[in-house]
Amino acid sequence: MNEETIPRVNRVKIGDRNLWREYGLLVERFKPLDLGQGHPDFIPNIAKEALLEVANSSDSSIHQYSISNGHPRLLNALSKLYSTLLKRTIDPNTELLSTMGANEALYCAILGLIEDGDEVVVIEPFFDLYVPLIKMAGGTPRFVTLKKSCTGSPNTSADWILDPYALENAFNEKTKAVIMNTPINPLGKIFEIAELQKITDLCRKWNAVCISDEVYEWMVYKPREHVRIATFPGMWERTLTIGSGGKSFCITGWKVGWVYGPDKLMNHLKVIHQMAVYAGSTPLQEAVAIMLEKEIELLGTPESFFHKMQENLKKNRDYVVDVLRRHNFLPVVPDSGIFLIANWSNLESKLNINVKNGDYKDVGFTKWLIESIGLHGMPSTMFYNKENRNEMENFVRFCFIKDHETLEILPKILDKLQLHCT
Amino acid sequence: MNEETIPRVNRVKIGDRNLWREYGLLVERFKPLDLGQGHPDFIPNIAKEALLEVANSSDSSIHQYSISNGHPRLLNALSKLYSTLLKRTIDPNTELLSTMGANEALYCAILGLIEDGDEVVVIEPFFDLYVPLIKMAGGTPRFVTLKKSCTGSPNTSADWILDPYALENAFNEKTKAVIMNTPINPLGKIFEIAELQKITDLCRKWNAVCISDEVYEWMVYKPREHVRIATFPGMWERTLTIGSGGKSFCITGWKVGWVYGPDKLMNHLKVIHQMAVYAGSTPLQEAVAIMLEKEIELLGTPESFFHKMQENLKKNRDYVVDVLRRHNFLPVVPDSGIFLIANWSNLESKLNINVKNGDYKDVGFTKWLIESIGLHGMPSTMFYNKENRNEMENFVRFCFIKDHETLEILPKILDKLQLHCT
Repeated sequence: MNEETIPRVNRVKIGDRNLWREYGLLVERFKPLDLGQGHPDFIPNIAKEALLEVANSSDSSIHQYSISNGHPRLLNALSKLYSTLLKRTIDPNTELLSTMGANEALYCAILGLIEDGDEVVVIEPFFDLYVPLIKMAGGTPRFVTLKKSCTGSPNTSADWILDPYALENAFNEKTKAVIMNTPINPLGKIFEIAELQKITDLCRKWNAVCISDEVYEWMVYKPREHVRIATFPGMWERTLTIGSGGKSFCITGWKVGWVYGPDKLMNHLKVIHQMAVYAGSTPLQEAVAIMLEKEIELLGTPESFFHKMQENLKKNRDYVVDVLRRHNFLPVVPDSGIFLIANWSNLESKLNINVKNGDYKDVGFTKWLIESIGLHGMPSTMFYNKENRNEMENFVRFCFIKDHETLEILPKILDKLQLHCT
Repeated sequence: MNEETIPRVNRVKIGDRNLWREYGLLVERFKPLDLGQGHPDFIPNIAKEALLEVANSSDSSIHQYSISNGHPRLLNALSKLYSTLLKRTIDPNTELLSTMGANEALYCAILGLIEDGDEVVVIEPFFDLYVPLIKMAGGTPRFVTLKKSCTGSPNTSADWILDPYALENAFNEKTKAVIMNTPINPLGKIFEIAELQKITDLCRKWNAVCISDEVYEWMVYKPREHVRIATFPGMWERTLTIGSGGKSFCITGWKVGWVYGPDKLMNHLKVIHQMAVYAGSTPLQEAVAIMLEKEIELLGTPESFFHKMQENLKKNRDYVVDVLRRHNFLPVVPDSGIFLIANWSNLESKLNINVKNGDYKDVGFTKWLIESIGLHGMPSTMFYNKENRNEMENFVRFCFIKDHETLEILPKILDKLQLHCT
């Protein structure tokens, strides 16, 4: 059996090149300061305590298969939380699904609803997984790009605006769904009420499903607030909202995510979930349930973990923005999330960066950063489709959900840029 | 948005009816003695200790994303274990993939290799997930059924034989793969060397991949031994072998499984894995790695967990066989695994069982058992395709990987059959 005899099936070809894997290997090799992938470098006490409680429990059933939809304790906690936030009763048995991270929630939503001939409106920038999943399902993505309004400096994520006419033009009778991410990675923009209303109007007009990826829902800096599109009139019945225990509690490796929406949509997703993984991991679902139960009691108080997290993140953001500015980057200041993008045009002419044939400049730059000064960021172009990548080659994404001691290494590393400038 | 406007896409239709979900709901409602789904009702100390070690660890990285292929500590432990068992070096980076249970390993193997027009030979009985996955991938299953040889009583799983001519007839130029399960659920048969050799010859003749589901590899009762088809000459390069931490360590809810095989096949699976879930859960991979490291040291000694488990299982098997015989069942005594099937024909005429229109008799019987006497077994027909279900309607499957105190309830419950006999 040789390579020629095993053709790559189409769905494997679709997902073939993956920058996360490429950068993962570089990180293993060069051990840079890791502001690349979106994960913390710490574990919060609330998570550690919950896992210890699970490990010490005498209930053996939390180590065996949960029912396919999810571990009841987690589904009940999620129902309680989101019923309060959405001001409607969410049924834990029919309107919730616990998944292997938000990744698998996206997978189930897209594979469960999209088929040959369907179009999916994708708001750009987008988490790079959306597009291969849409293609794997047989669909065609139609991109609508957030455009920078000309407000000048200082740049903030709110300057990036959804053009209502471009959005309108992307919908048609083939549109099965729209997929969006609010707060949006990597910009850190929160969609404005008017923007969400425009999406709502078009979903209702064209009878489309809204897949709302809200994994950064708790990372919104005061005074801004997270707004859930499922609460807009006429939207509950057509919206699938995706959340993440891994992102919310800074434990991305636990792979506990979820999706909620109306039964008539959810039951499509449950079939894909049961075929792909059958059920989530019971002990980690139990631990996330324990954390959610605590948070539900503290919601809106200064003792809430989510509250403290967003305060810390805001401090981190301000620190990183300041360091980047002092080193000739032009950061876009985010209103939310755990990332920012920064323009590195001012450095380009001074650095001698070798871009591999066919790669975008930001891929060349971020690989150079890892290899030459030991700093890991991600290229912005990976969050754009081909047509728009050229516009974004001068941006690099940095993740700032890190211990403050970690971030304090950043200025020392960036000082090394001087040595390479010509 | 109403039901009519959301057609079920084909891949959802394929997986639509799922008996596990149906029985799950019945179990929730009637709380029977659960000998249905294949999970223990205890947690071994080795697993509890490993999880505590993880929960107490000061290394925060074990709570964040692992690389997509798997957490290095787990991949290294698996490489060490299987390199020894297969007498060849298995590369942890290219020849291993850590998955969300064996379920996701099957999903990645089938979705990664099968496409429209492919045929897959399925040895029957089969884990009921195989067939919807093959169909979802665009393939067509070709069934080869194990037939009972006429050796009379006592029935053992070794009486069920793979017919070499039937197997030969199932292969042709469209055959992309064969999928088998050894030890095989629900029979508990271990494939004989001659049977594995026949599969080998046909895979090599027709250049087919062998997907070998070996999740019960450690549940083989002495003096029988587990034989890995990947060790047959010419088979490593075409075999994907699937294993399960959940089954092996009695923690089915942890959802840690794996698959190993040659790089040129594995790299197809990795693409599907990364799209569906991205990576497994890091803390549970760490905990399984800790257990495997201990087991590798003890392999083949009486202190080995796997050794003690198979001794306990053998005792459980003998106990359950005896109880069933005393209650008019005719069990097929398994050489391996955690299940047995038992013929209930002797009871049929005496019980007044109402079979729902369109259901098989064993589905009616097992539902009746849950509702009337509080005992949960699974129908055998769900492990067969339509053409062969009629032959198996008189068998019910019981799981015996339970605490001995749990199994001691079985005779008391079966005594109740008397009350219902006419």
